[in-house]
Amino acid sequence: MSIKFFDAYRTRRAKATGLVKDSEHAGLLISDLKNVRYLTGFSGSNGLLVIREDGQHLLLTDGRYDTQVRIETGEPEDVRIEIGRKLFDRAAEFAKEAGESFAVEPSLDYGQAQALGNPPVLGSVVEGLRLVKDELEVAALAEAGELADSVWRSFIEDGGIREGITEIQAAAELEFQLRTAGADGLSFDTILASGVNAAKPHAGVSREKIVPGLVTVDFGVYLDGYASDQTRTVCVGEPDELARELYDVVYRSQKAGEAILAPGVELRNVDAACRDVIAEAGYGEFFVHSTGHGVGLDVHEAPRAAAGVNPEEKLVEGMTVTVEPGIYIPGKTGLRIENTYVITADGAKSFNASPTELIVV
Amino acid sequence: MSIKFFDAYRTRRAKATGLVKDSEHAGLLISDLKNVRYLTGFSGSNGLLVIREDGQHLLLTDGRYDTQVRIETGEPEDVRIEIGRKLFDRAAEFAKEAGESFAVEPSLDYGQAQALGNPPVLGSVVEGLRLVKDELEVAALAEAGELADSVWRSFIEDGGIREGITEIQAAAELEFQLRTAGADGLSFDTILASGVNAAKPHAGVSREKIVPGLVTVDFGVYLDGYASDQTRTVCVGEPDELARELYDVVYRSQKAGEAILAPGVELRNVDAACRDVIAEAGYGEFFVHSTGHGVGLDVHEAPRAAAGVNPEEKLVEGMTVTVEPGIYIPGKTGLRIENTYVITADGAKSFNASPTELIVV
Repeated sequence: MSIKFFDAYRTRRAKATGLVKDSEHAGLLISDLKNVRYLTGFSGSNGLLVIREDGQHLLLTDGRYDTQVRIETGEPEDVRIEIGRKLFDRAAEFAKEAGESFAVEPSLDYGQAQALGNPPVLGSVVEGLRLVKDELEVAALAEAGELADSVWRSFIEDGGIREGITEIQAAAELEFQLRTAGADGLSFDTILASGVNAAKPHAGVSREKIVPGLVTVDFGVYLDGYASDQTRTVCVGEPDELARELYDVVYRSQKAGEAILAPGVELRNVDAACRDVIAEAGYGEFFVHSTGHGVGLDVHEAPRAAAGVNPEEKLVEGMTVTVEPGIYIPGKTGLRIENTYVITADGAKSFNASPTELIVV
Repeated sequence: MSIKFFDAYRTRRAKATGLVKDSEHAGLLISDLKNVRYLTGFSGSNGLLVIREDGQHLLLTDGRYDTQVRIETGEPEDVRIEIGRKLFDRAAEFAKEAGESFAVEPSLDYGQAQALGNPPVLGSVVEGLRLVKDELEVAALAEAGELADSVWRSFIEDGGIREGITEIQAAAELEFQLRTAGADGLSFDTILASGVNAAKPHAGVSREKIVPGLVTVDFGVYLDGYASDQTRTVCVGEPDELARELYDVVYRSQKAGEAILAPGVELRNVDAACRDVIAEAGYGEFFVHSTGHGVGLDVHEAPRAAAGVNPEEKLVEGMTVTVEPGIYIPGKTGLRIENTYVITADGAKSFNASPTELIVV
């Protein structure tokens, strides 16, 4: 853990403290573990953080993480670390030392909120900060993306996807290579879908054998807490006419979305740019999901690039967004192509460098 | 998907309907995805189920799952399936057709609960049903446990853990073998901890090299929706005196917990049985977590075997529970041994058959 990370956590806490000060509340109880990590570096599976307007904070976890929490946070002066059992009770007590009114996050369990006496909600404080990535985060996301993408290239070159093996065998091999390349884990359950399974946007991985035709692979890793997310579709054997046409439409759609990424662009227009290409080709009804989402500590986080998004929601430098249009024709075939981008001063940069042109394997 | 599964879902829905009838509410909105799966078979990542006291139910998901939801549920007569976007609004509308008062689960997001007008909570309806596993579930858990356990045996026999390779290399190899053996995925992030990392109960997997001494491996899979969970500790090279002593204490502690498992036993006494052995050996302060938890559709679910559990909470035939004592001496070493059990008519049966005696590799 380097000093610059500890500095980043401190800067983020200062910003969060400012947002709590701006609210009517004396403190904010942070229960979302990714938010706790964002503000402190602590990555354990049980933790609560109280951000108080007076700049004194409390990080709570249990005995399993006694050593880890101190190493990961660097034991900063503004954060008291306590190991305990009834974390919510202790968090509420600490929060109230600064004033009766403390707020909670909207993602808190409703049952837990009731046990705390239905405190007010203060939404989007940490999510708002996380929406725009700082340099350390962009570097971490780039590393995660590069790891996954370079493994993908060699996986495909080495014949990782071929007729006759099962989807699960191919996925296991890809996941093994991702892991041995240094991934801390997968950022979501791999999708590797051949044959009619490719017609299901979230097919998972079956025990069926890979057959000639399109194979869609949606995969990602976590590396040092940050996620990667990309989708590639290859064709086993020469594509038939339908596969070739669908691929061409989705390829152009994905490029159209990528092309308009820049600060100031409305998020709904990223969706529209992709959707228009598919609709014009006559497949509009088969693009059944939205176009994109942010990627950071969570593999799915704000913003959303979708049709219904408020026009005021626009891309900002430092935001991340996936562009992942797809066409799925039930009972026949389907595909998706996806890259994750960070918005730059004048456009966007993909974290996934491998080409998106159709590869025949 | 076989008929007997569809029958089981129907039986479970009937029980849940009965519990809703017994409450003051006309319906229950089920947002926990594992609960949705338990009652319908639907395994998608977005879904809401409304159980109405009049026996008419609604299952909602989005367009990505149009095909999948129909296959997995078998489209039963008592469940209307709808594909849509504003799932919560539609769920509330449907629930209210049977009466104004519908309840929600305590695990619902607080923010979402507020958007629904802070409906009443009806807790533990589905969790209560899930607490006691039916035959199909026990069979699924046994298959998941056997898969993981048999992969573990061959992994160790083939030298999967050895000096000089990194923790992540060993973990990747184990995970690859689990996956190629047919696992749908891992049930949690593998822990594979060597050297001083073994002194951290939730160490994860580092990029450091495996060194002589204890190596603790906590791992599990999902198979057909059900989880496995087990921990084995091996010793790289001959154990030194401390390692041998600690292993002996934890081994006897784990056996002591296993020995008392039977219907009617208080869950806190399972914890006590394990804890007493460790305390008597003088290591009580280093057993920093509770003894066990249930395993089912979630890898961590009810019940809990811990010191503070209400004496009225007792083991029942068909419950599952892990027994997983450990000792962790900060900066030195540590270990844990864990099996998952199902409570039988007169005792318990482990889902993990490999021996728990110390293996020197």
